[in-house]
Amino acid sequence: MSTINHQVRLAARPSGLPRPSDWNITEEALADPGEGQLLVGISHISLDPAMRGWMNAGASYIEPVEIGDVMRAGAVGEVLASNHPGFAAGDHVYGNFGVQEYALSDGAGLFKVDPSLAPLPTFLGALGMPGMTAYFGLLDTGAMKEGDTVVVSGAAGAVGSVVGQIARIKGAARVVGIAGGAAKCSWLVDELGFDAAIDYKSQDVRVALREAAPDAVDLYFDNVGGEILDAVLTRLARGARIVICGAISQYNATEGVRGPSNYLALLVSRASMTGMVVFDYISRYGQAAGELAGWIREGRLIAREDVVQGGIAAFPETLLKLFEGENVGKLVLQIAPS
Amino acid sequence: MSTINHQVRLAARPSGLPRPSDWNITEEALADPGEGQLLVGISHISLDPAMRGWMNAGASYIEPVEIGDVMRAGAVGEVLASNHPGFAAGDHVYGNFGVQEYALSDGAGLFKVDPSLAPLPTFLGALGMPGMTAYFGLLDTGAMKEGDTVVVSGAAGAVGSVVGQIARIKGAARVVGIAGGAAKCSWLVDELGFDAAIDYKSQDVRVALREAAPDAVDLYFDNVGGEILDAVLTRLARGARIVICGAISQYNATEGVRGPSNYLALLVSRASMTGMVVFDYISRYGQAAGELAGWIREGRLIAREDVVQGGIAAFPETLLKLFEGENVGKLVLQIAPS
Repeated sequence: MSTINHQVRLAARPSGLPRPSDWNITEEALADPGEGQLLVGISHISLDPAMRGWMNAGASYIEPVEIGDVMRAGAVGEVLASNHPGFAAGDHVYGNFGVQEYALSDGAGLFKVDPSLAPLPTFLGALGMPGMTAYFGLLDTGAMKEGDTVVVSGAAGAVGSVVGQIARIKGAARVVGIAGGAAKCSWLVDELGFDAAIDYKSQDVRVALREAAPDAVDLYFDNVGGEILDAVLTRLARGARIVICGAISQYNATEGVRGPSNYLALLVSRASMTGMVVFDYISRYGQAAGELAGWIREGRLIAREDVVQGGIAAFPETLLKLFEGENVGKLVLQIAPS
Repeated sequence: MSTINHQVRLAARPSGLPRPSDWNITEEALADPGEGQLLVGISHISLDPAMRGWMNAGASYIEPVEIGDVMRAGAVGEVLASNHPGFAAGDHVYGNFGVQEYALSDGAGLFKVDPSLAPLPTFLGALGMPGMTAYFGLLDTGAMKEGDTVVVSGAAGAVGSVVGQIARIKGAARVVGIAGGAAKCSWLVDELGFDAAIDYKSQDVRVALREAAPDAVDLYFDNVGGEILDAVLTRLARGARIVICGAISQYNATEGVRGPSNYLALLVSRASMTGMVVFDYISRYGQAAGELAGWIREGRLIAREDVVQGGIAAFPETLLKLFEGENVGKLVLQIAPS
């Protein structure tokens, strides 16, 4: 038996927003799993802002995706057949499977996931990399303390929505989210329990922060960069910590990244700005996932995914939702019929 | 008896480099010291890049100098008369006396200095605020460790020249200075014992750093900002620390500060950028000064001052030397005949 596998491959390195011509959709026959291998039927693929960086040439915290390669992506699925002693047909797994329908794996880098804990897409969101990023970025890199005023941008996204909720659970004095649009802002305050939300599309963030964070900002978790980072820099408390997790406003910039022109506020406020990459915390994922799953079970943490139907052919247009700010919660592409 | 005192007062807030018309030189009679007061004859005034910031309106880490006020400046001098129990005529003191020939003081914020330890101008340099800034910025904010590759900009200046020498004394694997001009670079390597120096006026800093810091940069002490900060950001080691002490390249910018467009290197390198203000360490100045004085006495630390003659009338033009990069070591204006 051979399996027909459809894949999304990188066809060209984009300038600015990725276009349809930057992708190739290919079809190939997949062999049965050999000795020590397993075959995974992929059900859901994770769409992440970081993908845009992986499409660029040049070394970063991870190698770029090469032209012609299957696009890198985290994904979840079910083991369909296994010659690997650690996995059996019927197991559910998370892995770096790429944008395709099936994957052959030797088991390296795979995690079993338990669908009785949460629906599979949650393992790409609050119980996956975004949840780990939120947890370790806030608590480890950002060293959040009880009583902090915490501000997070991209607050309705996969990482930001978890950052704000963990901050609330861990005793922040005030949790403020920055997001685009009234609907997202209402969701943050009404559903997730943020103390305030700022709609950067209709409000002056710098002005709005005065009211939303009257005691200034102790910890800013930055997912967006650009003007919003500059605005928050004007409202830092003494000894504030800024966690640099991403800069989605800059990933598609064709005229170079905009640096934070208010960075000398770090000096005035004796503040720090520190970068983090979630992979550094791999040995502690289990601990964090356990704590996050507990909060979800207790109803204290809301995990929300924006699941797009359409299979892998829908990948190119779905990815753009991230950069247009259209998703609420974790953006996921469903592959297999559920 | 009354004393005729000449003073430099702020006449206007400059745009860009301060011009002669931004200053007024005034003359007034100074009363004898009253109860609890002392009269200081100022011998040397400190000229600092930070002065440019004090001339701007708006709150920073310190209040601005108001129009019409005597320009703020650290200075050293001799007590000429005292009705204060803590000071006697003949004592030498450091204080925030301002740009003038004489100062009346109630003793607040004054430190006695011992001219047998070092010449008076050294108490404005390696044994004064610049030395304290270098010491605490490198060792505390920057948490320098033995074996670090340390890079410092403004390396031939009052702070930078001490930073590099402390790094050498504390066991840095490599100390690299960035300065403007061949003469400064030779001085750093030949006299101060830096391992390498980069002349930003004739070299591409980014390229030169590859050779000067082949193992990448563990600690960067930034006095300049702008292009040089961006260049060093491309050469960070994993977990690097950047100390933001100043940004002399930006202080006279009329079109806004240039932010570091390579700041996402903080993420890639899991690095941090932290601001420091020396005043936070006032309770530990004594300890640092003792250690620095010991190194000077042992010949391990070279304290160099660039002492300009001419009295207070020379202040406006002398200040510009800082922004033109003309001084080597601590820039000091001599007031009283020596």
